[in-house]
Amino acid sequence: MEKREELYRGKAKTVYVTDDADKLILHFRNDTSAFDGQKIEQLERKGEVNNKFNHFIMSKLEDAGIATQVEELLSDNDSLVKKLEMIPVECVVRNVAAGSLVKRLGVEEGTLLDPPVFEFFLKNDALHDPMVNDYHILSFGWATENQISEMKNLTFRVNEVLKALFDEAGMMLVDYKLEFGIDSVGNIVLGDEFTPDGCRLWDKETRNKMDKDRFRQGLGSVVETYIEVADRLGLKL
Amino acid sequence: MEKREELYRGKAKTVYVTDDADKLILHFRNDTSAFDGQKIEQLERKGEVNNKFNHFIMSKLEDAGIATQVEELLSDNDSLVKKLEMIPVECVVRNVAAGSLVKRLGVEEGTLLDPPVFEFFLKNDALHDPMVNDYHILSFGWATENQISEMKNLTFRVNEVLKALFDEAGMMLVDYKLEFGIDSVGNIVLGDEFTPDGCRLWDKETRNKMDKDRFRQGLGSVVETYIEVADRLGLKL
Repeated sequence: MEKREELYRGKAKTVYVTDDADKLILHFRNDTSAFDGQKIEQLERKGEVNNKFNHFIMSKLEDAGIATQVEELLSDNDSLVKKLEMIPVECVVRNVAAGSLVKRLGVEEGTLLDPPVFEFFLKNDALHDPMVNDYHILSFGWATENQISEMKNLTFRVNEVLKALFDEAGMMLVDYKLEFGIDSVGNIVLGDEFTPDGCRLWDKETRNKMDKDRFRQGLGSVVETYIEVADRLGLKL
Repeated sequence: MEKREELYRGKAKTVYVTDDADKLILHFRNDTSAFDGQKIEQLERKGEVNNKFNHFIMSKLEDAGIATQVEELLSDNDSLVKKLEMIPVECVVRNVAAGSLVKRLGVEEGTLLDPPVFEFFLKNDALHDPMVNDYHILSFGWATENQISEMKNLTFRVNEVLKALFDEAGMMLVDYKLEFGIDSVGNIVLGDEFTPDGCRLWDKETRNKMDKDRFRQGLGSVVETYIEVADRLGLKL
């Protein structure tokens, strides 16, 4: 399958149409951005690492019965995926307080959240991705009540699968964001990506950060750490 | 019933203990504040107008079967109320887009919200009352799942009663906030106040603002307009 014209260019991936109207190609670039795109850098091998990492995690989720967009790893930086009509919200689960929650609610980083916290954010750069709730989503027609409930259920099912996976590899899944879309027959399917760019992972013993906070906070060894995360999970990159 | 020591001083009301351990006195002051207390003014008769307005609305809600804190109008500025253990969240219903929602979600003021939007905000001045959701409330133990669901149900029941009441008097109930507490036997009871300080009311024909936005936006005739709102509802102040 070949890339045809560019459909959409995001901060770290470019989406291409293909000759099959139901399939797209995700091209993972080396671009790494933070703070609403105010900090952008090219990190060598990051596109390749994230592409392969994403394929590995999505396969684990498929094995657990969660429908994902991913079809096939095409090359170092490209994956073939099902075309979805993306729902314009991000689904976040937080097992441990970190990042924006710490500032917003004045809690200490590292506070265990039990039960875990679920949050919706509207995907809108101009508005800086504001937090929204079920009522905003319904009132503005971004998703139906069933889709809202299914996105929550699936996001929590992903939590069960991935918390265990990372735990066995000596890491804590602190938080993560997922994005869902609707496939050609109306099913809710996990889209976008799951990589250390869109989650927080801490070493269980040292609490060292093993995710994009290394980039945000200028801690260095960003891609090297992503490769170590993969290595711990049994994926050699 | 006499006021004894001061229990709590809010931005517009002072709460006093009484000789009855289950009863408090709310004293409505003339203080009017906006923008997290950055703009504060004394407006003549505002305390009296809000005290009587609140008593009138709470009586209408009691008539509709909604339990409220209010017991008795004691004087121009004082009301006797049941002592509640207040839940530290504000419950907001929005029938029409206005105020913070307009900026936050980039929608036009006056957009009809159908279904109406419900929002929780944490009562915390230092954090500027951040928006929260059910999961934050549960995870941080601010209320139980049943209490969350009852606060939502009651806030929407208030909407049905008050939308009709204001509509018949030529006004639109744009949005409002409620606060709930738990009484001595564990019931969820509507506390705090319902006045033009804590809701938005527009004239149905002209869309003139008849609430605290007159103060926030320096439109003048604040208390005079509150008195007109009362007058239209059949309450002479």
